[in-house]
Formats: sequence, C-alpha cells, structure tokens
Amino acid sequence: MSILVVGSVAYDTVETPLGRAERVLGGSASFFSVAASFFAPVNLVGVVGDDFGPAQLAAFRGRQIDLTGLERMPGKTFHWQGRYSQDLNSRDTIRTDLNVFEFFEPKIPEEYRRSEIVFLGNIDPGLQRRVLEQVERPRVVACDTMNFWIKGKPQELRETLATVQVLLINDQEARELSGEWNLVRAARAIRAMGPRTLVVKKGEHGVLMFTDHGSFAAPAMPLEHVVDPTGAGDSFAGGFIGYLASAPEVGDAALRQAVVMGSTLASFCVEAFSLDRLLTLTRPEIEARYQVFEQLTRFESL
Amino acid sequence: MSILVVGSVAYDTVETPLGRAERVLGGSASFFSVAASFFAPVNLVGVVGDDFGPAQLAAFRGRQIDLTGLERMPGKTFHWQGRYSQDLNSRDTIRTDLNVFEFFEPKIPEEYRRSEIVFLGNIDPGLQRRVLEQVERPRVVACDTMNFWIKGKPQELRETLATVQVLLINDQEARELSGEWNLVRAARAIRAMGPRTLVVKKGEHGVLMFTDHGSFAAPAMPLEHVVDPTGAGDSFAGGFIGYLASAPEVGDAALRQAVVMGSTLASFCVEAFSLDRLLTLTRPEIEARYQVFEQLTRFESL
Repeated sequence: MSILVVGSVAYDTVETPLGRAERVLGGSASFFSVAASFFAPVNLVGVVGDDFGPAQLAAFRGRQIDLTGLERMPGKTFHWQGRYSQDLNSRDTIRTDLNVFEFFEPKIPEEYRRSEIVFLGNIDPGLQRRVLEQVERPRVVACDTMNFWIKGKPQELRETLATVQVLLINDQEARELSGEWNLVRAARAIRAMGPRTLVVKKGEHGVLMFTDHGSFAAPAMPLEHVVDPTGAGDSFAGGFIGYLASAPEVGDAALRQAVVMGSTLASFCVEAFSLDRLLTLTRPEIEARYQVFEQLTRFESL
Repeated sequence: MSILVVGSVAYDTVETPLGRAERVLGGSASFFSVAASFFAPVNLVGVVGDDFGPAQLAAFRGRQIDLTGLERMPGKTFHWQGRYSQDLNSRDTIRTDLNVFEFFEPKIPEEYRRSEIVFLGNIDPGLQRRVLEQVERPRVVACDTMNFWIKGKPQELRETLATVQVLLINDQEARELSGEWNLVRAARAIRAMGPRTLVVKKGEHGVLMFTDHGSFAAPAMPLEHVVDPTGAGDSFAGGFIGYLASAPEVGDAALRQAVVMGSTLASFCVEAFSLDRLLTLTRPEIEARYQVFEQLTRFESL
C-alpha cells in the first residue's frame, strides 16, 4: 500500500551535549518519509524554499519516495533551532523561522489521491482536514499533533480527530488533550474522540499503544550513544506506518509489530544528527535491531 | 530457599491526590516481606517501638514470615510522613521521625544465619555490611540504597556494593551513584563496582535490568486507579527476590521472570494505601496479572 505524508521539510540547527549541527535537513515529513520508505512507497507533500537544493533532495533520491508533491516556493525553507538539556529529555526552541511554511496550503497531486494510508504530520488541524478532503477513501488515516494546536485550535483539532483511525502523540500531549493525568484514563478519553488506535510516545521510556484489542507496551532501546533526539518521533511514525503499509492486514499482531518497528527506526535516528543515520541504514540492520527488541523484552510464562 | 530481609518497619502518614492515610503500616521490610512471602519463607530483621501492637503484627501473621528477628525497643516506631504530587511521580517528605530506628543495630538470630538469599533494605551501608558478617555464605545477596547514602557515605556504600550480587535502585539513584546520565553507561559503571545484576526501577516507566546475559526491559502495568505509590519499590523487590528464591536456578530466564513478578507485586501495592492490597492478594490473582504482563508485552517476530 502506498503512503501519503503531509508535513514539514526543514532546516534544523541543533545543539546537544554531544555537539552542534548547523542548518541540516530536518522536518517531520523528511524523517517520516525516509523511515517509511524502507517498507512501502511514500508520496511526500510539503513545501521548501528556493534555498533547498539538490544536495538536500539527494536524501530522498534512490528511495521509494515520490517528490511530485514537494512544492518549491520563492523564499526560505522552514528553519528550526533548538538546544537539548544535558539528559536529552527536554529541549528549548531558540528560534522558529516558518518562512515559506507559513503559507503552506497542501495541494495533493492527482496521482496521490488514491494513497491507501495517509499520515497527517504535525500541522494546523484545519490543514490536516483539507488534506483529507482531497484524498479518496484511504484505508487508514493516522495523524500527529502538538501542544500548540491542542491549546490553540482545540475545536479544529477535535474535528480532525473525529475522522482519523490512528493518533500518535507524546505522553504530555495525551495529558493536555484529554485533561487527564492518568494515561489509561487519558487514552480512553482520546479514543472516544475518534482515533481507535492511540500510540503514546514516551521518549526514552518507550511507547504505550491502546487499541480495541487492549494495551501494548514497548520499551525504547537502551542506547549508550544518543547524539540527537530530533526526529525520533517522526522516525517512529515512519517505521510504524511503513510497517503497517507492508502488512497483509492491520490487526492486533501487525499493530504491535509496527510499534516495535517504529521504535527500531527511532533508535537508529537518534544515533546521529539530522537524517544521517537513517540515510546509511540497511534492511538487514533494521531486522537485526528488531530482533534485539525481541531479546530485550522476552520472558517466559510461569 | 529462605530469605533474610533487613529493613525498616514503620508507620507512614501519606497524602496522595486520592486521599490520606494516617499512621498506617509501612517500611521497606514490611512491604518486602509480605510480597516475598507469596513465594518463599521470609526471616524479618527490624525494629519497632512499644507503640507497635498486635494489630500491626497481624499483617505478618498467617504468612511464611518469621518475626523472631523483629526487635522491640522502648520508644516510638519509625514514622515517615510524605505528600505526593498530582501526577504521583514525585513526593515531598514532610517529616521523618527515626525514633527507635535511629539506634537500630541489626542482630541476626542464630536460626536466620543460614538464609540462602539476603536482601539488605535501604539502611546505612555500614549496617548492611555488619548484617552480611553475621550470615554464612548466602547464595545471593541483594541490596537497595538511596541518594542519602550515595552522597553521605560513598565509601561505605562502595564496600557494601563490592560484596553483593544484585542491586535494586531507581534511575535517579543509578545516575547519582555512577555519575553518568546515560543509563547504559551508568549500568556499566555500577556493575563494575560489584553487583553483576543491576535492576533499575523507573516507577510508572517500568524496569531495566542489566546482567551478564544482557539487558531486559519490562513496562509497569498501566493502571487506571493508582491510590498510593508508597512501597511499590519494596514490593517490587519482594516479588523479585521471592520469585528467585522459589526458582530452581538463578539464570537469565528466572531473572527476567523475577522482574515481571516484581512488577506484578508493585502493581498491586499501589492500588491501595499501606499494605492493604497486598494483604488481600491471592496467588491466583498474582498469576493472572503476570499473564496480563505477558499480554501487554508480547509481539511476533518478523
């Protein structure tokens, strides 16, 4: 099944305790697309400025990523600058230059409209809905969001959530969206808003998924060298959605495997700045780390 | 195999968002002993004051818990008072009255000296060592500690750690003890100090175990109603050590099962104040929740 992703393609300037990367490739749709393309064809919808050149586009070439929907506008590409704390668990945004992204109005190319799986990256929930209006009966619609929209456009977000099957957010966002501190109650409240499958990302503490089949918990890979957490959540989403797109059916077993595959891609993402590690990644490496997750979590019955 | 536990038996006064409990039974050795006694005989060494009566002792009766080593001294029993944050992830100590615990000098009864497994609760590392000097070649020595001793008695703690096989601490303590932010590096540093098996408790985020066989991660049970987290770590230790004491051998498989059993006991502990839930718990309930952990974490190979 082919995947349609709508999200940001950006330049990131990132400082972590292990170093600094200046104006490197970033953006939710970038991480998502490269991660998902290991499993299924990806149709990317986004916008870049005229400062986004062949060197950046090279990251997407030679993969099953279609760039017909990557619009180029006069002006500069979205730029985000941030600095991580010593433990990498929090970050401060130093500056956000929306640039051409400020006027982003996703136009879905004709040939993308029959994509079977849609991933609505973290953009204005109004835009997310207008994307959905342009596609024909996708089998699965998944989306991301953030505190900015939860607080700023709650009604629009509710309308979007009513139309999606899968929501991927972090634990803090789940608490804000539901108004519940307890994650089990938060999950029940959010699933009543529409998305029957809720994936709660907890960073280094792993993932909790709530579905009609019950709950599933997966740890994050304990890593000795975490260079840059930027893009981990989007890489998770790419591995998760990509795996689902390649699965014969989207049932409980596939959803659980998808969570582990998302965690696998995220664990590679954080090993280097930008998409550097994802771009050298091979399918055998992915499969080997999936097996490490099995080893990490297996225990015997009584 | 029989278990020797040394630790506190106390009165707790606890406030959580769901209520308040006044001068209820608490203390690391109390939670540990009741949890462990589901699996193996427990020999308890601790001290109480003359205000600790038959009603409190009743919690330990009718279980395989030997109280020969529970000393009674003139004066009051250790009393701790604390208040939890809204999300239950942090707590403030409002007062600590050490009372008779201040002069605690563990005396190991003759009949306890051949206990095969020793659990040194969170007490002065100097006392922990003096307990070990009184026992005869136990098969497994496990211990707990806390920031107070990591900062206050680092040298004594190092000497104790050099003689133990298993250390159970929380993630913040692991970071302080090792001076490493990254848990993988922290684990390596701590395991080099002596304990080849390190169990890092992360509260609602579960447990990471590092052994000579590799790493194991287990989630905490996602619970809708958490009443009081007090004693969760000690109940974990009781379930963990109790299960090991009942296992035919202490290898990788048993250690992993022990982590899940510890998590199982901890998940019951937090459902009520004090030991209330542990005291009504049955073996079938324990086995059923262990199976819920299996269901929560299972996923298929690729």
